[in-house]
Amino acid sequence: MRTSSEYLDKLARMRKNLYLDGELIGRDHPKVLHASGAIQLTFDLVADERFTDLLTATSHLTGRKINRFTHIHQSQEDLFAKQEVTRKLCSLSGSCVQRCMGCDVMNALSVATKNADLKYDTDYHRRWLKFLRYFQENDLVAACAQTDPKGDRSKRPADQPDPDQYVHVVERRPDGVVVRGAKLHNTMAPYADEIIVVPTRALAKNEKDYAIAFAVPADSEGIYLIGRQAFFLPREENLAAPVTRYGDIESLTVFDNVFIPNERIFINGETEFAGEAALLFALFHRHSYCGCKPGLGDVLMGAVALIADYLGVEKKEHIREKQAELVSVAELVFAAGIAAAVKSFQAPSGTQIPNIVFANVGRRHAGHNIYHEYSILCDISGGIPATLPLSGEYNSPVVGDFVRKYVSRRAGVSAENHYRAAHLLADLLTSEVTAALQVAGVHGGGSPIMEDIAIMSSYDMNAKKDLAKYLAGITEG
Amino acid sequence: MRTSSEYLDKLARMRKNLYLDGELIGRDHPKVLHASGAIQLTFDLVADERFTDLLTATSHLTGRKINRFTHIHQSQEDLFAKQEVTRKLCSLSGSCVQRCMGCDVMNALSVATKNADLKYDTDYHRRWLKFLRYFQENDLVAACAQTDPKGDRSKRPADQPDPDQYVHVVERRPDGVVVRGAKLHNTMAPYADEIIVVPTRALAKNEKDYAIAFAVPADSEGIYLIGRQAFFLPREENLAAPVTRYGDIESLTVFDNVFIPNERIFINGETEFAGEAALLFALFHRHSYCGCKPGLGDVLMGAVALIADYLGVEKKEHIREKQAELVSVAELVFAAGIAAAVKSFQAPSGTQIPNIVFANVGRRHAGHNIYHEYSILCDISGGIPATLPLSGEYNSPVVGDFVRKYVSRRAGVSAENHYRAAHLLADLLTSEVTAALQVAGVHGGGSPIMEDIAIMSSYDMNAKKDLAKYLAGITEG
Amino acid sequence: MRTSSEYLDKLARMRKNLYLDGELIGRDHPKVLHASGAIQLTFDLVADERFTDLLTATSHLTGRKINRFTHIHQSQEDLFAKQEVTRKLCSLSGSCVQRCMGCDVMNALSVATKNADLKYDTDYHRRWLKFLRYFQENDLVAACAQTDPKGDRSKRPADQPDPDQYVHVVERRPDGVVVRGAKLHNTMAPYADEIIVVPTRALAKNEKDYAIAFAVPADSEGIYLIGRQAFFLPREENLAAPVTRYGDIESLTVFDNVFIPNERIFINGETEFAGEAALLFALFHRHSYCGCKPGLGDVLMGAVALIADYLGVEKKEHIREKQAELVSVAELVFAAGIAAAVKSFQAPSGTQIPNIVFANVGRRHAGHNIYHEYSILCDISGGIPATLPLSGEYNSPVVGDFVRKYVSRRAGVSAENHYRAAHLLADLLTSEVTAALQVAGVHGGGSPIMEDIAIMSSYDMNAKKDLAKYLAGITEG
Amino acid sequence: MRTSSEYLDKLARMRKNLYLDGELIGRDHPKVLHASGAIQLTFDLVADERFTDLLTATSHLTGRKINRFTHIHQSQEDLFAKQEVTRKLCSLSGSCVQRCMGCDVMNALSVATKNADLKYDTDYHRRWLKFLRYFQENDLVAACAQTDPKGDRSKRPADQPDPDQYVHVVERRPDGVVVRGAKLHNTMAPYADEIIVVPTRALAKNEKDYAIAFAVPADSEGIYLIGRQAFFLPREENLAAPVTRYGDIESLTVFDNVFIPNERIFINGETEFAGEAALLFALFHRHSYCGCKPGLGDVLMGAVALIADYLGVEKKEHIREKQAELVSVAELVFAAGIAAAVKSFQAPSGTQIPNIVFANVGRRHAGHNIYHEYSILCDISGGIPATLPLSGEYNSPVVGDFVRKYVSRRAGVSAENHYRAAHLLADLLTSEVTAALQVAGVHGGGSPIMEDIAIMSSYDMNAKKDLAKYLAGITEG
Repeated sequence: MRTSSEYLDKLARMRKNLYLDGELIGRDHPKVLHASGAIQLTFDLVADERFTDLLTATSHLTGRKINRFTHIHQSQEDLFAKQEVTRKLCSLSGSCVQRCMGCDVMNALSVATKNADLKYDTDYHRRWLKFLRYFQENDLVAACAQTDPKGDRSKRPADQPDPDQYVHVVERRPDGVVVRGAKLHNTMAPYADEIIVVPTRALAKNEKDYAIAFAVPADSEGIYLIGRQAFFLPREENLAAPVTRYGDIESLTVFDNVFIPNERIFINGETEFAGEAALLFALFHRHSYCGCKPGLGDVLMGAVALIADYLGVEKKEHIREKQAELVSVAELVFAAGIAAAVKSFQAPSGTQIPNIVFANVGRRHAGHNIYHEYSILCDISGGIPATLPLSGEYNSPVVGDFVRKYVSRRAGVSAENHYRAAHLLADLLTSEVTAALQVAGVHGGGSPIMEDIAIMSSYDMNAKKDLAKYLAGITEG
Repeated sequence: MRTSSEYLDKLARMRKNLYLDGELIGRDHPKVLHASGAIQLTFDLVADERFTDLLTATSHLTGRKINRFTHIHQSQEDLFAKQEVTRKLCSLSGSCVQRCMGCDVMNALSVATKNADLKYDTDYHRRWLKFLRYFQENDLVAACAQTDPKGDRSKRPADQPDPDQYVHVVERRPDGVVVRGAKLHNTMAPYADEIIVVPTRALAKNEKDYAIAFAVPADSEGIYLIGRQAFFLPREENLAAPVTRYGDIESLTVFDNVFIPNERIFINGETEFAGEAALLFALFHRHSYCGCKPGLGDVLMGAVALIADYLGVEKKEHIREKQAELVSVAELVFAAGIAAAVKSFQAPSGTQIPNIVFANVGRRHAGHNIYHEYSILCDISGGIPATLPLSGEYNSPVVGDFVRKYVSRRAGVSAENHYRAAHLLADLLTSEVTAALQVAGVHGGGSPIMEDIAIMSSYDMNAKKDLAKYLAGITEG
Repeated sequence: MRTSSEYLDKLARMRKNLYLDGELIGRDHPKVLHASGAIQLTFDLVADERFTDLLTATSHLTGRKINRFTHIHQSQEDLFAKQEVTRKLCSLSGSCVQRCMGCDVMNALSVATKNADLKYDTDYHRRWLKFLRYFQENDLVAACAQTDPKGDRSKRPADQPDPDQYVHVVERRPDGVVVRGAKLHNTMAPYADEIIVVPTRALAKNEKDYAIAFAVPADSEGIYLIGRQAFFLPREENLAAPVTRYGDIESLTVFDNVFIPNERIFINGETEFAGEAALLFALFHRHSYCGCKPGLGDVLMGAVALIADYLGVEKKEHIREKQAELVSVAELVFAAGIAAAVKSFQAPSGTQIPNIVFANVGRRHAGHNIYHEYSILCDISGGIPATLPLSGEYNSPVVGDFVRKYVSRRAGVSAENHYRAAHLLADLLTSEVTAALQVAGVHGGGSPIMEDIAIMSSYDMNAKKDLAKYLAGITEG
Repeated sequence: MRTSSEYLDKLARMRKNLYLDGELIGRDHPKVLHASGAIQLTFDLVADERFTDLLTATSHLTGRKINRFTHIHQSQEDLFAKQEVTRKLCSLSGSCVQRCMGCDVMNALSVATKNADLKYDTDYHRRWLKFLRYFQENDLVAACAQTDPKGDRSKRPADQPDPDQYVHVVERRPDGVVVRGAKLHNTMAPYADEIIVVPTRALAKNEKDYAIAFAVPADSEGIYLIGRQAFFLPREENLAAPVTRYGDIESLTVFDNVFIPNERIFINGETEFAGEAALLFALFHRHSYCGCKPGLGDVLMGAVALIADYLGVEKKEHIREKQAELVSVAELVFAAGIAAAVKSFQAPSGTQIPNIVFANVGRRHAGHNIYHEYSILCDISGGIPATLPLSGEYNSPVVGDFVRKYVSRRAGVSAENHYRAAHLLADLLTSEVTAALQVAGVHGGGSPIMEDIAIMSSYDMNAKKDLAKYLAGITEG
């Protein structure tokens, strides 16, 4: 397994293809280092004995100890562990662990490649296993690139005026294919080793060119990463805090005639398995949300508890009711993830797949409540998150004393700690990271309406209808 | 194990002490037979191979096969099974399985009697084990009587102007005690073999006389069952349907100087274990709610699916969104029950106790959503549940044809089936049973505010506060 | 103006055509007398000086003082008064005033008949004015019959396999027409003098036979009223209370070849004005909901306040928050009605029409919250509404004392008053009336989805889109 | 009346006392110019005939035409106009009009000064009238400074260890008083001419030193404005858009021994009228929220309509339902403001005071729904607001074409307009302004729990309780 330094060293050596704030920057740029903080955690905490067991797994391929984020789930326990570690790391970074994506897409491909081979006698699973070995042995970080721009929503991929609105094969060669198109909303692609591409949706028989899944180094020729950053509020150094170590750069990832060699192609034209890969990535990722959103919930609950303590209102009934509401949102989502593992099943590839209904009701509940959770934090915090003077004023020789004096609340807590608590609230309610987490909380892994569709497609509603008929005394018709 | 006939035969022989509609009636009265329909199911379905495994268990005491509703949970699997069978039976009866209460209170007492003995070297667990053997061997049905009238809410039990507002010991004899008081909201006490009494709340040291738990035959001298019925809408016989077999009689159960022999006293003065019994019953019962409310949800979903089918609007997006909402409520609650089992722990008595937080967030979510679920059913049903002419008109030689004509909707479904479906909706939205289920859905096992309290008492909020401090860079204070 | 005795006398003389509980009954049947309680109030309170001004108006036709429920609104103040009186009477009857319907449909026809005449030079408005004079002078009570059974929802009226699924003209004669079909959900048709029929929806050009609006005496040959009752819980006489005076009978109203003379036909084939009449009735009725739902809210708030007082929890923060929520629902709906009057406009007929958006957002908010309001009442009430022994037990020489003892809570309130308060809660949460009010609360006047449609049809969303374009700097496209 | 240039000129001449980003800056700093954009609108649009009538009023003092934001409401129509103009200006600035505060506090003081004089024969109203004349004639802009830091929440003002946690009089002189303390969350104080101070809460008899209300030039000696900014996302100039003209600077306003001459003191020790001023400011400001929040709602609706159009999903049922929800939130709040005006009453000073209940239920509904509204916008927008590359990339010669290509959706809309629409969504969901508006939407003018308190204090709940007693047949007790 790698250390975070090794991870960063490799990033630093990659070809520059990240565009941010009007500049082409390298992966050793301070913003990239900053944004990759959560990824770094996934390496650093392996050595922390509180996390070793959660963060590592035994490869079913090699029997070696590997980072859990490169593991293919073999059992209910693996699903429990992935959910748990995701929650822990999200709470410790106050945001998004980011590395789950690569793990989720690899698990999805483990199943779809095998199923394609079983039906079509193709060679995808072997190729994918070879890539998996490389992935695990080099402890790689992968971004999953799924969402296409989609152009005109009323038209299918093959009917778009601009055919590039969905990633597709533009040239087929003996040794591989050339792809063109773009993927939106690619969290951490700017600091991933690899980008793994799967389709965004189910495809029709005549959309073979769009039925393409592959892995590609993130700095490959023809790839452009067009970034958008999200960081917590800036602070002067004397007020630095763990929360400010984390952030995120999203990218619009452009594939401008990128060559993909055969060995890295995992689906190529088998539309039903391209669709399966898409759905399975969503499923594994929704199960991950059942870990990450409770982790974010932990942070919000903690912030509420901290400010309630500093304000001396911890015991107030309406505060406790709102805390119970935060607990309830987080733990129901977490419970759904647990139930998804309990009711999981094994694919022909041996991969353990979470129960569809539970993973989806969990993700859906998280998505429906994300703004509600922030609303509660805002409610308890008062106006200070939006009006707190920032560190320039805290450190001012003229007005710094006023800031400290008037941010103080109860005896026994220093002015600095009062300020630090208020600043955390400001970070949690008014920073770029929060806006990104709100949008991701609604849409990441598929918005609630996508979960509605997934639930209704897989739920046995006919059994319920038959129950109603039975109760009503309807024997036929 | 008994058959339902044996159960009913025993009921018929019991002393008359049930008052309903201004009359003193026997337990062979048609209303009692009707109300006990769901209990009868718990006997009848043992022989149905689809249910045998769920409905039976192996006694940890005798090694014999017993009805699961008399079982003491020994493992995670037992908790899974109890939740599952509860859901199934509630869905099949379209209402409340009722028999869970006795099981839940027996499990609570299994723990509290053992813990009391361990601390005080008392003899409660042996007494209770003896009663358990009798309970299991005779396949008994028990009501749990917990909620006291409580009189003046601003005063503790010992300070009430009327001391009987909480059940308490009024006389202590060498061979037992005499108790007085009453218990409210006792579902199925009118057709239970036994009533098992536990306190309603935590008690103070000076409230020893209130710290009493015991089992007593439901027709004992001094017990008055003052009933209130809830049935589905009446139908003439040709329109009978399974749903109409079920119903419920609640009682205000009065203990007017009832003698309890020592062998049936399970806590007597040990206030902390009286409180523990109270809390544990609530906990086991909230875990049961994680089964029963999804069972009710199955019925509501089924009714929505049926009417949507008959109206030809099954594929409408807004219908499907609302169905997904019903699924989500039911399955989140169910998931919480599963998670409570996964994170369960074993008491010194060997009893498996569900996780407190998960059982409570599950019950809480059910309680917060019960009216919301009916609101959805109402929304899809249209006005017909409230205005459907009942069976007297359906069977009328004059207007029956009109009823059949104008209740018909789509081709391929008979007028009778259209009517039966509409009648089920009427039963589910406008009957006494529904009103009872709504109130029980909010308050049974403790209303959402009680779950808030339970959650906040057991959740490690300090760990979350420490997390917030860590993220904020607060090292002390 | 009539007295309620005169109203009842006339009912008693009407032809028997009401079918209920398997019987053909007269309008002097005790159930009809009971169900018409709220209508009787509209006569009785005219003489009560607290209500005279609200309950009467000056006819714009005759200049005479008339009952406001027969009035055509001439001004903003008339709309205020109608909303206010509706609220008052609903709160005083604890349920539904019922008589608003006739008023709302007459106002709708005042506009549509005039508009039809203006376009087609027809004679509808004169006919309608003549009927209005008769209606006002005789202080009549009218049911509006709007909702057709609609048969197969995927087919339009003219395409139904059974053409009677929408009321339509089956024969045209020189002196009138013969109609056939049925109307659902007709509140108070069983004790109305007149039934006024309007279509249920917008109609296509080829649906002229369905474009029919008329008034007909409720006991006319060919009309069958197939009833469904809703009353509060039964009580023995010593416990009678004002709330128990009220109730409701709904009917499925069948028109089995009913002759309508020309003078009572108000639209006949002008499909666009048939549709206008339908929409306007809905609009006036939604405005009425902005009065009646707050009136019901008053009752729920009052019940919460009463039980909170008797339990001694009036000052508890969470009780007060929930009361504030009830106030907020009621007063927002009421405010929407006021705003609808403030932004009302005058039709060519002189009728004052409420603003569409405000009337609809008010009705919609009421519909979305009706179950929520009951949920709050249930939450505060505890389990007692569902388990309270009824008056047979209260009056029992054996157990009556127990009932009184154990229903008592705080000093200073008699056992009877405690019982009466608990019984009111039982009536409000578990009676047939409540079920009917819940269904009506969702669907009466059109369910929330109908309001969504009405809002989106009339709201100037393009102005908002232009605003967004302006803010975005989009000047064309 | 002034022009915006005159307003800015005066700002430029004021003493520098604003601290932002670690610097002491003048009021001619670009950030101040930017933040005051909405205030400038209130001057600029006076000359725009679409707004002249709304934006001006006739002074009841001088009979001259004045800016409405300096007007004292004399009638229902004045309240309608203030609400309307507030909505319009908020929608046009995509944020907060800001200038309402000064108007609201002046109206509050008009009442409280008069009432104090009536009781104590003081001279406050004359002083205040003199100040009003100056205020109106010079067309001034005032910030209201109300919220004190409050220190230890469990202690009253007079019991704080640090007495400065509430603004208070530290020295009394013949010609005035010296005050010390601070006020939090002062929107637009950094670019106001005047700061008007009122207490934050009701005060006890012994808290006379805290019972102080006054007006003071914002750059007076001893005043420190410690700022916090909020702007929309930065854009390169070719992409400028009206929305980016607006923003906000909040301040922590410190009064470090500030002298207030007698003529500018409006309450001084009369604790009940200090409390009345506090409550009345809140009331007028909540009524303003009934205008501003619908204005913000207009922007959100418009943005949804625009993106739905560009995505070609305008007609989708679930989109329309969500739009109807946005309309409903906005128009219910607006309706509450209208109703507050309809049910307004006149104070002894002649000032028209909005109805307390309606203003509060309106503000409360807005506060409860603010995050919900953003949640809807987020739901429809998809992930793009959080991942859209900003203008540096749009303008990049290397990747700009990719940005334009992949942000395009439907034919007929230019790439730039697609980008502008997406950028507006990014501004509305991820900018500093939005975070500020969310926090202000919950807390500005008092958070929903404050409205609960205001509602419950003024609502006649006893009348409702009496109604319940009447319905229950409870005649006494």
